[in-house]
Amino acid sequence: MTIPVTTSTDAADVLRRCSELDRFSASPTHLERTYLTPEHAAANRATAGWMQEAGLRTWVDAAGNQYGRREGTTPGLPALLLGSHLDTVPDAGSYDGMLGVLMAIAVAERLRDVDLPFALEVVGFSDEEGTRFDKALLGSQAAAGTWDPAWWGLRDQAGVTLRQAFLDFGLDPRRVGEAARRPEELVGYLEAHIEQGPLLEAADRSLGYVTAIAGARRFRLTVHGEARHAGGTPYDRRKDALVGASEAIVVIERLARASSCIATVGRIEVRPGAVNVIAGQADFTLDLRAATDPERDAMWARMEAEIVALCDARGLRLSVEENHHAFAAPCAPWLQDAVRGGITATDASYPPGTEPMGLWSRAGHDAMAIAAVSDVGMLFVRCYDGISHHPGEDVREIDVARGLDAFESAVLEVARVVRERA
Amino acid sequence: MTIPVTTSTDAADVLRRCSELDRFSASPTHLERTYLTPEHAAANRATAGWMQEAGLRTWVDAAGNQYGRREGTTPGLPALLLGSHLDTVPDAGSYDGMLGVLMAIAVAERLRDVDLPFALEVVGFSDEEGTRFDKALLGSQAAAGTWDPAWWGLRDQAGVTLRQAFLDFGLDPRRVGEAARRPEELVGYLEAHIEQGPLLEAADRSLGYVTAIAGARRFRLTVHGEARHAGGTPYDRRKDALVGASEAIVVIERLARASSCIATVGRIEVRPGAVNVIAGQADFTLDLRAATDPERDAMWARMEAEIVALCDARGLRLSVEENHHAFAAPCAPWLQDAVRGGITATDASYPPGTEPMGLWSRAGHDAMAIAAVSDVGMLFVRCYDGISHHPGEDVREIDVARGLDAFESAVLEVARVVRERA
Repeated sequence: MTIPVTTSTDAADVLRRCSELDRFSASPTHLERTYLTPEHAAANRATAGWMQEAGLRTWVDAAGNQYGRREGTTPGLPALLLGSHLDTVPDAGSYDGMLGVLMAIAVAERLRDVDLPFALEVVGFSDEEGTRFDKALLGSQAAAGTWDPAWWGLRDQAGVTLRQAFLDFGLDPRRVGEAARRPEELVGYLEAHIEQGPLLEAADRSLGYVTAIAGARRFRLTVHGEARHAGGTPYDRRKDALVGASEAIVVIERLARASSCIATVGRIEVRPGAVNVIAGQADFTLDLRAATDPERDAMWARMEAEIVALCDARGLRLSVEENHHAFAAPCAPWLQDAVRGGITATDASYPPGTEPMGLWSRAGHDAMAIAAVSDVGMLFVRCYDGISHHPGEDVREIDVARGLDAFESAVLEVARVVRERA
Repeated sequence: MTIPVTTSTDAADVLRRCSELDRFSASPTHLERTYLTPEHAAANRATAGWMQEAGLRTWVDAAGNQYGRREGTTPGLPALLLGSHLDTVPDAGSYDGMLGVLMAIAVAERLRDVDLPFALEVVGFSDEEGTRFDKALLGSQAAAGTWDPAWWGLRDQAGVTLRQAFLDFGLDPRRVGEAARRPEELVGYLEAHIEQGPLLEAADRSLGYVTAIAGARRFRLTVHGEARHAGGTPYDRRKDALVGASEAIVVIERLARASSCIATVGRIEVRPGAVNVIAGQADFTLDLRAATDPERDAMWARMEAEIVALCDARGLRLSVEENHHAFAAPCAPWLQDAVRGGITATDASYPPGTEPMGLWSRAGHDAMAIAAVSDVGMLFVRCYDGISHHPGEDVREIDVARGLDAFESAVLEVARVVRERA
């Protein structure tokens, strides 16, 4: 058997490494890797190994993010940061997050001997999904310096606080501020990620550039009615919270479908929840996204008004709690240009003379958090059937190969711009 | 202090005894008394004491039902059975079931020295609500001889089988057949019960007679869709099981409201049930009732057709499991007459010349089970605001007083008819 000597990491290597990371899971039967767990530490170690092979100096920051860095023309220059995240949802696929980290390492390796007017850093963020503490983007928010001390009391399902989880992982909660990056340290942030949607596939394109990342608002809506005996209560005496909630869910879909927004009700609970008792209370969630905050906020105002009206008509009362509010993050035009240019130069799925597809990301990304401290840009890679957050998540090797070329080309374009500015 | 000597049990005594039974509960903070528990045994003992005071000979049958009996003109005559149930839902009120048992005892006491052409029996059924084993009317079905051996394997929430619960209570499962009454042993069955609805109150009447007891059908409907990322999946790619279920719940209400049926969806569960994942599956219950079986069954056929159609339109699939099916039980015309006559003779809430109200019972009752083995009749007593299955359940003393007079009068009317037949 001949062992091939690889000089640079190609698409097949990237996909193989994605599979290798699957081993670091809380479960032998499915992939689940959450913040500050032994799996997290193991994934960091494996990733650090690949970073070192690519010529990067590695460290774990004060919030558990895995970093690697090589210097530019002179030591100590601001860095162009490339990355994504290494944590997963429960029963996850192998690519959401990890593909972007491993593509970034592969690009750093390709550019190993290239002189750059910035340091090149790769980061594997430690928590993007928010699976463990039900609070997304913890890793990248630490890096953005937007950590909120109120989070220390967050608990996982076993009751462990975020503070205790830091200690258990070997991190010092008092030093989390040291993870914060300053704007002057960063040239920009570029992230490659699977699309998590079906648009590139529908258009038969390998790659697209991201124009903005939607800011989600999440609400808990509660319809208050009256629990009553299912048999004995005639319709004119009913205040059925579940029928009210059902009308609301239908309204939410109707309004969002007729707009450019995306709205999802993914969870509902009714009380008392007995087959022969009219629902006295129904709680449901709403996840609302749009390309821009004003579109999204106008949609919510309209939804709320219609739901209040339908509740009034039934003698029901609505209460609303907003438990997540992220501003939409536009990608910086010059980084959009760099990514678009990279695609144009390399992606053979685009016939000559056609423009690369620009998409707004319906899903959240670490880039949203980093936007607080740096310009950001993103490259989307086609995925199978839009499937994500599911073991069926899949990407084609050819698309990853084109993605590596485009991502490398985008970094070189950033170098050109930085040199031009100097 | 003078202790009054009561010669017969009046409405105040009946209400006081209802409160005394509240002590026999699984919880110190709310009323919950389920089948074959220590509370059940204690409630039987207290009830047996009152039966004995009323001159009845007492026993517990092979299914835990508490009986009392006095003979008629000659020993061993068929019995007119009066009663209701002693078990409760969780967090129950004090009257659903118990009021009817204690009114029956009070009537037996009033008639203690009256010569009757039948034996008079009072029964406190042991399980009407089905709270513990999720199967209603166990006590009265044992008495009706319709016990199904398949029930032995039913388990309560702690995993205890019905068979084991019999043994723990001191009953022999092999002898449950001995609880069955034969038709020739029974003249008829009369039950007094709170209305559990608002119709008598709305009409400002104390009492009504029951024409039929609705037979409920209960279904578990499952809408099968596809779990997907809430952000990344555009509307034309969604198969949102919760939106489909919500449309179904709205349709169910619309159809039932326009008919004489009552339909309730009291429980819904979605999977995976995450704020940012489109629901892949939604399960909900349907409880459907009408005065007659054909009305109810035609309504179900129409509901099912509309729900299948709306699921088809969304690329969803519906599956249905029927987990309860009770035939409606009409009250025997001659017992309706006896109860109506009793009301006419005694209930001063009816202006002279007006007819007593006849109602169909939307709720199930032990009388439904006993209808398999005997003619049945029921007297409804007004309750506060239609509230039942809730600690707010309430009745007025004046209504109980009128109910005792009417129930006593109905028994005497039955005696007249029986003598006439002889």
